[in-house]
Amino acid sequence: MDVRHYMQQLGQQAREASRAIAAADSGVKNRALLAIAEAVDAARSEIIAANEQDLAAGRANGLDAALLDRLALNSAGVDGVIEGLRQVAALPDPVGAISDLNYRPSGIQVGKMRVPLGVIGIIYESRPNVTVEAASLCLKSGNAAILRGGSEAINSNQALAACIRTGLAAAGLPMTTVQVLETTDRAAVGELITMPDYVDVIVPRGGKGLIERISRDASVTVIKHLDGICHVYIDDHADADKALAIAVNAKTQRYGTCNTMETLLIAERRAAELLPPIGEQMSAAGVELRGCARSCELLPQAVAATEEDWATEYLAPVLSVKVVADIDAAMDHIRQYSSGHTESIVTENYTLARRFLREVDSSSVMINASTRFADGFEYGLGAEIGISTDKIHARGPVGLEGLTSQKWVVFGDGHIRG
Amino acid sequence: MDVRHYMQQLGQQAREASRAIAAADSGVKNRALLAIAEAVDAARSEIIAANEQDLAAGRANGLDAALLDRLALNSAGVDGVIEGLRQVAALPDPVGAISDLNYRPSGIQVGKMRVPLGVIGIIYESRPNVTVEAASLCLKSGNAAILRGGSEAINSNQALAACIRTGLAAAGLPMTTVQVLETTDRAAVGELITMPDYVDVIVPRGGKGLIERISRDASVTVIKHLDGICHVYIDDHADADKALAIAVNAKTQRYGTCNTMETLLIAERRAAELLPPIGEQMSAAGVELRGCARSCELLPQAVAATEEDWATEYLAPVLSVKVVADIDAAMDHIRQYSSGHTESIVTENYTLARRFLREVDSSSVMINASTRFADGFEYGLGAEIGISTDKIHARGPVGLEGLTSQKWVVFGDGHIRG
Repeated sequence: MDVRHYMQQLGQQAREASRAIAAADSGVKNRALLAIAEAVDAARSEIIAANEQDLAAGRANGLDAALLDRLALNSAGVDGVIEGLRQVAALPDPVGAISDLNYRPSGIQVGKMRVPLGVIGIIYESRPNVTVEAASLCLKSGNAAILRGGSEAINSNQALAACIRTGLAAAGLPMTTVQVLETTDRAAVGELITMPDYVDVIVPRGGKGLIERISRDASVTVIKHLDGICHVYIDDHADADKALAIAVNAKTQRYGTCNTMETLLIAERRAAELLPPIGEQMSAAGVELRGCARSCELLPQAVAATEEDWATEYLAPVLSVKVVADIDAAMDHIRQYSSGHTESIVTENYTLARRFLREVDSSSVMINASTRFADGFEYGLGAEIGISTDKIHARGPVGLEGLTSQKWVVFGDGHIRG
Repeated sequence: MDVRHYMQQLGQQAREASRAIAAADSGVKNRALLAIAEAVDAARSEIIAANEQDLAAGRANGLDAALLDRLALNSAGVDGVIEGLRQVAALPDPVGAISDLNYRPSGIQVGKMRVPLGVIGIIYESRPNVTVEAASLCLKSGNAAILRGGSEAINSNQALAACIRTGLAAAGLPMTTVQVLETTDRAAVGELITMPDYVDVIVPRGGKGLIERISRDASVTVIKHLDGICHVYIDDHADADKALAIAVNAKTQRYGTCNTMETLLIAERRAAELLPPIGEQMSAAGVELRGCARSCELLPQAVAATEEDWATEYLAPVLSVKVVADIDAAMDHIRQYSSGHTESIVTENYTLARRFLREVDSSSVMINASTRFADGFEYGLGAEIGISTDKIHARGPVGLEGLTSQKWVVFGDGHIRG
C-alpha cells in the first residue's frame, strides 16, 4: 500500500464530506447518531467476535493485563457505546448558534456564529469505544473525522467503522464523513499530522510520549493533553473536615486519572494537626507517601521524596507531600512543578481564595473542591473529546464547543463604510 | 552579539514579567498606559528626530515611496500614538471576567475566567506606531510582549521603547513587560518563533511572504493573517441601489486594505442590468476591470481575466468580475478562490441570505453590507492586533479577547466526587 497516496485520498474525501456535514441540520445529525446506535446494536455479535480476535492476537503478542483490559469490549461495553451515542444525540447542537449580536454606530448588526472546524484527525490507543465516541462528537459538531486507533484494536475498530458508515448512509450523509484508517502502518500517522490542506486540527489521546511526538512533528494545530500533576493546597485557614475529605478524595477516588492529586501541599501551621489523620487514611487506602523532611517527621510511614517526585505524574497509589510556609510558597511550588492541569486550595479565607483563583495558571483552579471534578461531564459539557493542557483555542475539558470556531456575521441593509 | 543567548534572556525576562502583568489590576495597567502616553508626549522631539534618522537611512538605501510613507512618524503621527494609548486605557479589562458560572448537580459551581495567554511575540514591518499599539494591547490584556519591528525603523522603535519603559516603571510594573528587540539581526526572528518555553503565541503582521515563512518555521502557535481575496455576490434578488452602493464602496473606499473586494460575482439574470452602471462607476474611479467572457461582453472597458486573476489579492485599483448562474455557482467560486477573509451577498431573498450566511466558510460573512466593515473598530472590539484567517483560537479581527484564554474555575464547599 502506498500510505501517502492512501492518506491523501482519505484527506480529500474528508475535506469534501466536511462541507456536507457542516451544512447538515441538527435533525439529520441526530438521525445519523441514532442510526449508528441501531447499527451497533444489530452488529453486536460481529463486534464482540472482532474484539475477541484482537484480544487473542494481543495475548499472543504478550500485551500486559492493563492493556488487554482497555482493549476488551464485551456486551456491556457495547451497551455503553450505544448509550454514549444516544447521549450525544440528546446534546444541544452548537453549530449555527449566533451570540453577541449587536447594532454598531454605523448601523450594521454584528455577531458571531459558531461553525465547525472542518476535518478533525484523532489518534488514540487501545480502547475501541473511543472510535465511536470520537466519531459521534465530530459528527454532532459538524466536522468530518479521520480516526487512527491502536493497531492492537484494528478488527474491533473496523467492525465499529462499518456500523458508523451504515448510520451515516441511513441519514443521507456521506459515508466518508467518518473514516477509520484501514492500515496499521505507523507512517499513516506521520501523513495525517502533516496534511494541513485536508486536516484542520489533530486531537491525540494517549500517553505523554505519543502526544509529545505528535506535537513535535505536526504541521497542523494539535489540541494536546500532556500530563496531570495536580495539587491540593491546605491553607492556614482550612476547615479541617473539608481538608481531610478533599485530600483523601482527590487521591484515592481513582488513581489512574489525570485529575487525581499527585502532590499535597500543606501550610506549616496546620501540618502537625492535619497530616497525621490524612496520612492514616492514605495508608489505610494503600497509598504510599513520599514527603519532604518536615512531612516525614509527622508521617512515620512516609519515605523521603526526591526532586523527581515533585515532577512525577504517578497515576498510581503514591502521593508526594510537602509542608510549605504559606500560600506564596504553595503557589511557587505549583508554578515550578504543576503541569497546569488542576489545582485546588482548601481555605475559609476570602482573600486567599480569591488570590489563588486569580494567580494560579492552570486549566482548572478550584476552591474547597476535589481535583477529581475536573472533567467534561462534571462541568456540564455533556461529553469530552479530551482535556487540553494548552492555552490556545481550548483549555481544560474539551466538549463539542472545543471542536468549533466562531465566524463573524454582519447584517446590513445596503450599508457602506464612510 | 550572541543572538541565541540574547533572545533566551529576553524570553526568560518576559516569562518572569508575565506573572506580574497577569496579576496587575486594571487600575495599574491603565496608569501604565497613560504614563506611556505622557512619556511619548514628553519625548516627542526625540521620537521625531529618531524617525528622521530612519527616513534618511531609508532614502539612502533606496526604499520606495510607499515604504517611506509607512515609516514616517511626524507630530500628527505622534498624536495618533498618544490617542491610541488613551483609547486602549479606556477599554474594559478582559482579564478576570468570569462567565457561565452555574451550579452543577454535584453541588459545585463551575464557570470560566478570562486569563492572559502569557508572552506574546509580535513581528511586524516598517510602521513604528505598531510598536506602541501592540505594546498597549498586550499590556491591557495582561500579557508580556516581545516586539520585533522592521530593521528600517530601528531608531524610531528604540525611542518609543524608552517611553514604554518609562511608563511601565511609573506604574510600578517590570520594565521587561514589553521588550523591543535592540538588534536587527534576522536570526533573532528565528529564535523568537522557536522558544515555546518563553513565548506562548506569535502574531506576525506584514506581507504574505513573511507570514508564510514564520508559520512554516514556528514551533509556537501563530495567529496569522494571510491574504484577503474578498468577494461580493450580487444575487438575482438584489436591490439594485444597494448592489451598486456596496460594490463601489467595497472596491473603491480604500484599495490597499485586506477587506477590500477583489472579485465581484453577479447572477446572470441581473448582469445586463447592473454590470454596466457598476462598471461605469468603477472606471470613473480609475479601477481596471478584468472579466469573464460574459462580463467582457457587458463591459467594453474590461480585459479578459486569467485564471490567476481569480486567485489574486490586488491591493490596487483592479477588480475581477464574473457572471455566475446562481448562488451555488457563486459559493463554488468562493470556495475555490476565497482566502476565507470576508464575503458579502447582496440580496432581498430571506432563504438565500440565510444559506449564504451558514454555508460560506469565511471569517466574516455579510448580508447587504460592504466588505470594508470587516475591521476590529467597526465590530466594536475597540482595538485590533490583527485579522486572523485561521479558524483555531481566533478568527477574523483579533482584539483584546483574542490575546486571552479562559480557565475553568470551580467553587465548592468541601465537595468531593462520589
